[in-house]
Amino acid sequence: MKAQSELPASRDKLLFTPGPLTTSLSVKQAMLHDAGSWHHEFNAKVSWVRERVLEIAGLSSQAGWETILLQGSGTYSVEAVFATCVPPKGKVAVLANGAYGERMVLMLQYLAIDHVVLRTPENTPNDPAALDRTLTADNSITHVAIVHCETTTGILNPILEVGRVVKRHSRVYVVDAMSSFGAMPIDLEGAGIDFLISSANKCLEGVPGFSFVICRRDALLACQGYARSLSFNLIDQFNGFEKNGQFRYTPPTHAILAFEQALLELEQEGGVAGRGARYQANHETLVNGMKQLGFRPYLESPLQSYIITSFCYPESDKFTFSAFYRSLSDKGFIVYPGKISQANTFRIGSIGRVFPGDIEALLAAIRSVLCEMGLDPSAGQPAPRAVRTNRHLKSLPSTLRK
Amino acid sequence: MKAQSELPASRDKLLFTPGPLTTSLSVKQAMLHDAGSWHHEFNAKVSWVRERVLEIAGLSSQAGWETILLQGSGTYSVEAVFATCVPPKGKVAVLANGAYGERMVLMLQYLAIDHVVLRTPENTPNDPAALDRTLTADNSITHVAIVHCETTTGILNPILEVGRVVKRHSRVYVVDAMSSFGAMPIDLEGAGIDFLISSANKCLEGVPGFSFVICRRDALLACQGYARSLSFNLIDQFNGFEKNGQFRYTPPTHAILAFEQALLELEQEGGVAGRGARYQANHETLVNGMKQLGFRPYLESPLQSYIITSFCYPESDKFTFSAFYRSLSDKGFIVYPGKISQANTFRIGSIGRVFPGDIEALLAAIRSVLCEMGLDPSAGQPAPRAVRTNRHLKSLPSTLRK
Repeated sequence: MKAQSELPASRDKLLFTPGPLTTSLSVKQAMLHDAGSWHHEFNAKVSWVRERVLEIAGLSSQAGWETILLQGSGTYSVEAVFATCVPPKGKVAVLANGAYGERMVLMLQYLAIDHVVLRTPENTPNDPAALDRTLTADNSITHVAIVHCETTTGILNPILEVGRVVKRHSRVYVVDAMSSFGAMPIDLEGAGIDFLISSANKCLEGVPGFSFVICRRDALLACQGYARSLSFNLIDQFNGFEKNGQFRYTPPTHAILAFEQALLELEQEGGVAGRGARYQANHETLVNGMKQLGFRPYLESPLQSYIITSFCYPESDKFTFSAFYRSLSDKGFIVYPGKISQANTFRIGSIGRVFPGDIEALLAAIRSVLCEMGLDPSAGQPAPRAVRTNRHLKSLPSTLRK
Repeated sequence: MKAQSELPASRDKLLFTPGPLTTSLSVKQAMLHDAGSWHHEFNAKVSWVRERVLEIAGLSSQAGWETILLQGSGTYSVEAVFATCVPPKGKVAVLANGAYGERMVLMLQYLAIDHVVLRTPENTPNDPAALDRTLTADNSITHVAIVHCETTTGILNPILEVGRVVKRHSRVYVVDAMSSFGAMPIDLEGAGIDFLISSANKCLEGVPGFSFVICRRDALLACQGYARSLSFNLIDQFNGFEKNGQFRYTPPTHAILAFEQALLELEQEGGVAGRGARYQANHETLVNGMKQLGFRPYLESPLQSYIITSFCYPESDKFTFSAFYRSLSDKGFIVYPGKISQANTFRIGSIGRVFPGDIEALLAAIRSVLCEMGLDPSAGQPAPRAVRTNRHLKSLPSTLRK
């Protein structure tokens, strides 16, 4: 049996990934309770969480919006939107410039839903003009699907401009905002978004266990009878919440309790604006430091989100990602492999319960690892300060500096 | 922000439900860590858990068996087996005597998979002879599906006898052992089971967040090309584990860490035999005490599992389940509503981190509530001892008495 007395979270390796992420100790401590999934006290929390997610989006159930929580990973919720909402003779136009757009295509293949793919290169945003031509030419397209922040690269796609095209053609608009929701403002009404998907364990800084769909109630209920799966039937899931406040099937109760706490901490940080500011500070610290160490970001700066950043491998035979990764892990930092088909890259996330001081500590560790690998950090810049134990962000209240 | 200093689990209401259940504090404390889902340290745990589940079943990967963990509730894994494993022209015979058998039927309807339902009344086990006749008459049936412990009532179905029929006819055998696996010995090879489904948060006493399928590797891989869903494609999920030890999509990392601890605690309790003995003691304490209080179990004793028990409402206008439930909840005990269509019942579970002393405390609370409702507990039996804070089970080591 493991020792129970150790100080837990303070010794965990820091996660600089697209998720699951580092979370606050208080979020994890909220999981030290067992809740009854049928119980009114738990159901009140579920109800509060559903409404709070809408508030984060600047929406409300009174105004006709709903949050549908769904057990499982974010991918499940994306598939559930297609499985529930596309009519039998529907057709989906997918805008793809990375693995998550391609995953949508794969889902549609499995679900035997007709579709067309509008691809741009991995370093190029989705093209609203190309979509405009496609929708003009093909009236059978009923839905348009897009990934907001494509974490394959970290590129930001133009969901607002694309949304204007979608609405001009009166199609249904599906946005995968998995990695952006909660840290970037998204105007669902302005962009004409009918279904937006995100997850508990990304910028909202909960733990993994469920994801969610924000949707117009009318748009959801108009899909009655289309569902291709019992578990992924979002209308049934919605009806369960409406009928008695419950999930239809066993919910991840502990993950919901953690999420409640995570949403309180988001509010304390100043909501989406506050959280976005911290992530932006993380990202800027990261990119400046990495450039000093001789690394080149894969994307041009204006395309780059402050969520996750792809860096090209150094041009040296001495560098292997596996050795780099392991050495950083030994020092307490977990980065992420690349997912780009056209270039050798790795990725570093700026999201989760990490602060600019943590990024500086990561940079110091990267400098050490490069030296160990015989790759002298370039340009003779001074090394970033080593601040492994000093996670500070001056603009945040002290309660958040843990 | 919630106070961080309170002693958490000791004050939670005790859950006497089919799950999610009361778990040990040490299982919950295992969630005080953030793990990287791509990281080799986490993947080693996933690998250990997959093999350990096989060991609990008396199986091993060397002998051709696999555990496929799947994000989400147990229902997802049942649907995933059908969605992955039934060929396009396959047909499933479902043995149903409760809500979980009917849920299988519903899944098959959504998936547009041909099926036939062999129903018995809710208080009557599935009928192997009827299945034998059906399989003899219908060669197009490829799969037979059954629920081991139907928690609608708590009835035990004859999975061994049914399995013999299934194998005599050389069909594929799917067993939903959600509520029994880990607490009742199940001989998969003897019963000819090809796919067995269970969940982390039932008798294995983990927290909810994922479920799993135990299957013959060959039986799984023979299903290549049938999958009707990307997320529920168990072959892809298996290939992911085999390729690099990882879940394809974000796993519930904290729930996996909790499960690792839960499996260690199962071993400490003496495995399936030890856990089953405790649940059986819980069940006997419960049924004896409830009879003393004038309650009648819905099922005849030989049909009744020691997992969950349905009790008929008292025959009095003074009894309403909602008032009974709320009063018990106020005293710190959560029971469960009935799900039977033919009788007014409620349910009390015997599983999770609860001990006979907890059952006695529950019985004392039920006696109080009955008195408050003006329903004098019948027969003038002495009240069970009130032992709310004294959760003991003499046969267990002291480390488990928390």
